[in-house]
Amino acid sequence: MLLDEMTSEEFAQMVRLDPVVIIPFGATEAHGPHLPLCTDSVQPEAIAMAAAERLECLVAPPVRYGQHSSTRNMPGTIDITFETLHLLARDILHALRRQGLTKAVILAGHCGGLHMAALRLAAEEVAQEGGIRVMLIADYDLAVAKLSEATDDMKDGHGGALETSRVLDIRPDLVKRKRGVGTAGSSGGEVLRNPEKLYPQGFVGDASRATAKAGNIVNEHVITELVKMIEDRFGE
Amino acid sequence: MLLDEMTSEEFAQMVRLDPVVIIPFGATEAHGPHLPLCTDSVQPEAIAMAAAERLECLVAPPVRYGQHSSTRNMPGTIDITFETLHLLARDILHALRRQGLTKAVILAGHCGGLHMAALRLAAEEVAQEGGIRVMLIADYDLAVAKLSEATDDMKDGHGGALETSRVLDIRPDLVKRKRGVGTAGSSGGEVLRNPEKLYPQGFVGDASRATAKAGNIVNEHVITELVKMIEDRFGE
Amino acid sequence: MLLDEMTSEEFAQMVRLDPVVIIPFGATEAHGPHLPLCTDSVQPEAIAMAAAERLECLVAPPVRYGQHSSTRNMPGTIDITFETLHLLARDILHALRRQGLTKAVILAGHCGGLHMAALRLAAEEVAQEGGIRVMLIADYDLAVAKLSEATDDMKDGHGGALETSRVLDIRPDLVKRKRGVGTAGSSGGEVLRNPEKLYPQGFVGDASRATAKAGNIVNEHVITELVKMIEDRFGE
Amino acid sequence: MLLDEMTSEEFAQMVRLDPVVIIPFGATEAHGPHLPLCTDSVQPEAIAMAAAERLECLVAPPVRYGQHSSTRNMPGTIDITFETLHLLARDILHALRRQGLTKAVILAGHCGGLHMAALRLAAEEVAQEGGIRVMLIADYDLAVAKLSEATDDMKDGHGGALETSRVLDIRPDLVKRKRGVGTAGSSGGEVLRNPEKLYPQGFVGDASRATAKAGNIVNEHVITELVKMIEDRFGE
Amino acid sequence: MLLDEMTSEEFAQMVRLDPVVIIPFGATEAHGPHLPLCTDSVQPEAIAMAAAERLECLVAPPVRYGQHSSTRNMPGTIDITFETLHLLARDILHALRRQGLTKAVILAGHCGGLHMAALRLAAEEVAQEGGIRVMLIADYDLAVAKLSEATDDMKDGHGGALETSRVLDIRPDLVKRKRGVGTAGSSGGEVLRNPEKLYPQGFVGDASRATAKAGNIVNEHVITELVKMIEDRFGE
Amino acid sequence: MLLDEMTSEEFAQMVRLDPVVIIPFGATEAHGPHLPLCTDSVQPEAIAMAAAERLECLVAPPVRYGQHSSTRNMPGTIDITFETLHLLARDILHALRRQGLTKAVILAGHCGGLHMAALRLAAEEVAQEGGIRVMLIADYDLAVAKLSEATDDMKDGHGGALETSRVLDIRPDLVKRKRGVGTAGSSGGEVLRNPEKLYPQGFVGDASRATAKAGNIVNEHVITELVKMIEDRFGE
Repeated sequence: MLLDEMTSEEFAQMVRLDPVVIIPFGATEAHGPHLPLCTDSVQPEAIAMAAAERLECLVAPPVRYGQHSSTRNMPGTIDITFETLHLLARDILHALRRQGLTKAVILAGHCGGLHMAALRLAAEEVAQEGGIRVMLIADYDLAVAKLSEATDDMKDGHGGALETSRVLDIRPDLVKRKRGVGTAGSSGGEVLRNPEKLYPQGFVGDASRATAKAGNIVNEHVITELVKMIEDRFGE
Repeated sequence: MLLDEMTSEEFAQMVRLDPVVIIPFGATEAHGPHLPLCTDSVQPEAIAMAAAERLECLVAPPVRYGQHSSTRNMPGTIDITFETLHLLARDILHALRRQGLTKAVILAGHCGGLHMAALRLAAEEVAQEGGIRVMLIADYDLAVAKLSEATDDMKDGHGGALETSRVLDIRPDLVKRKRGVGTAGSSGGEVLRNPEKLYPQGFVGDASRATAKAGNIVNEHVITELVKMIEDRFGE
Repeated sequence: MLLDEMTSEEFAQMVRLDPVVIIPFGATEAHGPHLPLCTDSVQPEAIAMAAAERLECLVAPPVRYGQHSSTRNMPGTIDITFETLHLLARDILHALRRQGLTKAVILAGHCGGLHMAALRLAAEEVAQEGGIRVMLIADYDLAVAKLSEATDDMKDGHGGALETSRVLDIRPDLVKRKRGVGTAGSSGGEVLRNPEKLYPQGFVGDASRATAKAGNIVNEHVITELVKMIEDRFGE
Repeated sequence: MLLDEMTSEEFAQMVRLDPVVIIPFGATEAHGPHLPLCTDSVQPEAIAMAAAERLECLVAPPVRYGQHSSTRNMPGTIDITFETLHLLARDILHALRRQGLTKAVILAGHCGGLHMAALRLAAEEVAQEGGIRVMLIADYDLAVAKLSEATDDMKDGHGGALETSRVLDIRPDLVKRKRGVGTAGSSGGEVLRNPEKLYPQGFVGDASRATAKAGNIVNEHVITELVKMIEDRFGE
Repeated sequence: MLLDEMTSEEFAQMVRLDPVVIIPFGATEAHGPHLPLCTDSVQPEAIAMAAAERLECLVAPPVRYGQHSSTRNMPGTIDITFETLHLLARDILHALRRQGLTKAVILAGHCGGLHMAALRLAAEEVAQEGGIRVMLIADYDLAVAKLSEATDDMKDGHGGALETSRVLDIRPDLVKRKRGVGTAGSSGGEVLRNPEKLYPQGFVGDASRATAKAGNIVNEHVITELVKMIEDRFGE
Repeated sequence: MLLDEMTSEEFAQMVRLDPVVIIPFGATEAHGPHLPLCTDSVQPEAIAMAAAERLECLVAPPVRYGQHSSTRNMPGTIDITFETLHLLARDILHALRRQGLTKAVILAGHCGGLHMAALRLAAEEVAQEGGIRVMLIADYDLAVAKLSEATDDMKDGHGGALETSRVLDIRPDLVKRKRGVGTAGSSGGEVLRNPEKLYPQGFVGDASRATAKAGNIVNEHVITELVKMIEDRFGE
């Protein structure tokens, strides 16, 4: 399943079957005092692996660097520029196409506005060139449909109960026991120089409500939905 | 009010008062068979002028070219690339700062995802450099709070009843009498080469419900909200 | 005539006639104490509209930002970089070509050296790619043939009697009554950091001689010449 | 040790100790019929982890995409452009510096000429800006000193006995049993369009001689040398 | 005088005297059947050497590649892009400044519009940054004042009597005996795809009138003027 | 032989014979107290001329600016950026191809790592596009086979006995009589901000052993090898 654990010949054989390839795009980003910096990496990587098993498709090496706006100045966020992320995604799609793959899925674990825009810009450019079809999915968008499994706080967000539950299901060893409540301020339309000030706890929601069980239900839902979406677009 | 109708000296005097400057970013984009290509230009330009009168602030020359994804292949959409729009917005902010202005508002009439991202990227870069504060507001986001004035179709969107009502209030001469219903398909997560196929009528919503009266109520609301937001951030 | 006042369908019908499209490129630039910052915008916009009426052709949305060297540090000049102007002109030509237009005229109101070079670079690149033919005309170059209608000062230049007369004909409300004499120094071949020092009055020529009548004669000449040039190249 | 398995707070505390951070740069590249595409990734990642344990330093998330020339057209090589790799390395160094880290080690598993140049260009630019010191080391350069542990073929190279031995020590499950001999032709100074033709087997050397034991000796040597080099430059 | 014929130490000593440095920018361009492709290179190089002797200043290594529009498709024109020329000139100015030089003269032998614009753009950017002052002079502009020494054809131009005379004075061995008349057509404002068609002979003017004697008078004039201009701006 | 000493017509005739074209890429770089800054320029230029005579091929105008890392801060090094050198080489190859030439040899006098990488990147890109074949050769790599003619110091390097001997053969007037010994330190894997500190004398080797005779033997060898390599790849 993992594209780069194959040999060159195994890869060549696999390509003849015209498989889907999923590329997990994570990030290294502050997620409050209870979640690891790899929160946005481990989620799409786990989802991609599970989906790939069901679909018998490939998973390309994950990318663990992304673009960040609001958490950029928080300790631990390692952010790359919009342009670099855009070029990286475009180059990977180009290389996959050159290798004969025709169906790619970018699965994004971080769904910041500019981050997603960089991935979308790359996807649109390559889709317009043709030769490879591209899906772009933020796994958070699928997970949020099951938000009520984890919390009744409809404003739950970055690093909140939903994400914490999901990571408790995937990598419980990386989640701290002490989990509190995080709030978000509003910039009132201003593009701030220090947006981290709007997030005094560094996350948004009531992380104390998170449970591995809820996370498991959400993750199962995300995997099922993702598989369905891919089959709908790329199946026969 | 209009920055470029002043002389150099008048502008220099005005700058001493440290005024806000609003920059309307429009677009030239297909909006169905009943609305003009300048739909996304006339709305923020009219709003900016009205707000500037109340705030006694400046309106910079509008930009009438934007980035387009879903309508890119429809007749009449004149789209510029993400990078060009990004550089244009950045250069204008840089130039306004060099001229001594310290408070800018980008008012976007078109709110496509990549279009807004290009403006946001520019705004974030300049805000991080300092010397000028920047607000970024899509007037559609303010208008949508009053959607029910124009229609009860909660899926109303691009070129629908809300936009049609607003243009009927601003430039009724540019709106066609015959106004129908537009529907939107789903790409199921795929980034399409021909996204226009999802919009067979070229717009989304029931434009037949649009009225100038509703448009006026919505526009008044947008002006009032915009003025309030600017005063909240940039007032004393 | 105004491209963006059409609907998508009207535009599509017009394109079938293979019309010429004129794109007015103006600027926001200091023009002395008597002329507005939009001096270089209103001239090509008015000329383009008049020519389009005679030619039954399209006028694309004007651009009111340009590149500036000598006036860059004067109050009110809002300048964008060479590269941004180049990309903007190139993108617009690309988009017009994608829409099926085959004959474009860039009409420049500002004729600074680097500004014109940015437009020319874009025009040459697109012309070499093919699919659309491009004319590039600075309306000042056509006007200067009638300089003697406005003044006998052969060194009349930026913001001088010729330009003032033309704006008096087009937008008399934007011209101040008090109009004096502006002089220009020489940099002796040096590329100056503060070139504005060579223009202590911010304009060049004897603006007191300007009259609306002379402006009208000049503008009529410019329109007639432009129409003739376009017919010569793009007519059958 | 793994930077992104920490929380934001843990990272902030760690930064106060002014630790070294190692960034493993791998690749996805054809390495003959016996080695996996991740050969250049697993080596520096394993070395970095072992060195980090001894040095009590950080390991940043690895990058598994690189620039490729000679193997570019072989099945399974996923290559990104020089410029993208350069920007990615530069951005990561910038972000680490912004986070307060002052000592970075780029550990490259792939040592192609342009690949290393892209990393070096980034390292030189950031070093010249100051604020963070950068070491750039290709682990192959350290390993080759122990080449004779694995083979007596002095022309052993890409995917040969040395690399195969090392991967046998690190990820034996990914190495095929059948391992043969690969040869390399010469381009005679020409920069070829199809350089893969010079490598008919896709690797260079006698892989049949590879043993996990030799690999272990080599890897221990690489770790020891790397630790010594880092202590020499970044120790007190 | 020739900067790069000095040793590092000699250069360091020279820099202490704060000398002017002249950088000849030539081109490789078709100049009709009688003149060599290096016509625009040998002129500024000879002028620079003569001026440097009088001024006791430095001459940097010449550049013999430029940007070309109208002759781009003629045999022998080797043209580089606007952007490359711009970056090259900028980099050279930056490097000279980093070496402690504070007064640079770009002497251009080719004076095509975009070519000069690329040099000017670089010069303006570096002048605005400060630390080095820059003059930009096209030697043709100085030579044309003595046009009547070579011909009475006021439309003499590219490769005509003036240039031919000058090269006859500098490198007579490179000028062909057979020299005729070249004419220029007009593009009527269009930016042509094949502009070479406007120049059927590849040059403009009556080259048969050219004489080495006239060339010598013109060249002496250019040297004298250049020396005077440099002394005016950069002398004490 | 010199491409730019031909007329346009002579060049066109020559192109019909499908000749090889050699492009000498030199540099302006500190080479210790005994060698001129043009050391890396005069070597490939002399070699190219001699080889071209034997091969009856073309020599394009030399480039005398390059990218420099370790000597960047030494007096007299005029360095251009990686990107500029890359674009310059690419543009020249593109222009030669547009002119109908199909076989190019880049002959590099300076062989710094990033400098060569910039040339290689350009060569690979153009070779992959097709239409022209490209060889890339550093003349130092050919010369070093005859190192023992000039010295028995196997660590002889930049500005040492080998290079000094070669320049004594080519331009003895530019070599100083006083020639000593230069040493090199090690950066231990660090990418230094001030790499010049590793070279206290500014060169590496025992220059006192250099002789014109040894230089002549080496240069003859380089010419012969280069001719053979070109004939092997580009001959019939």
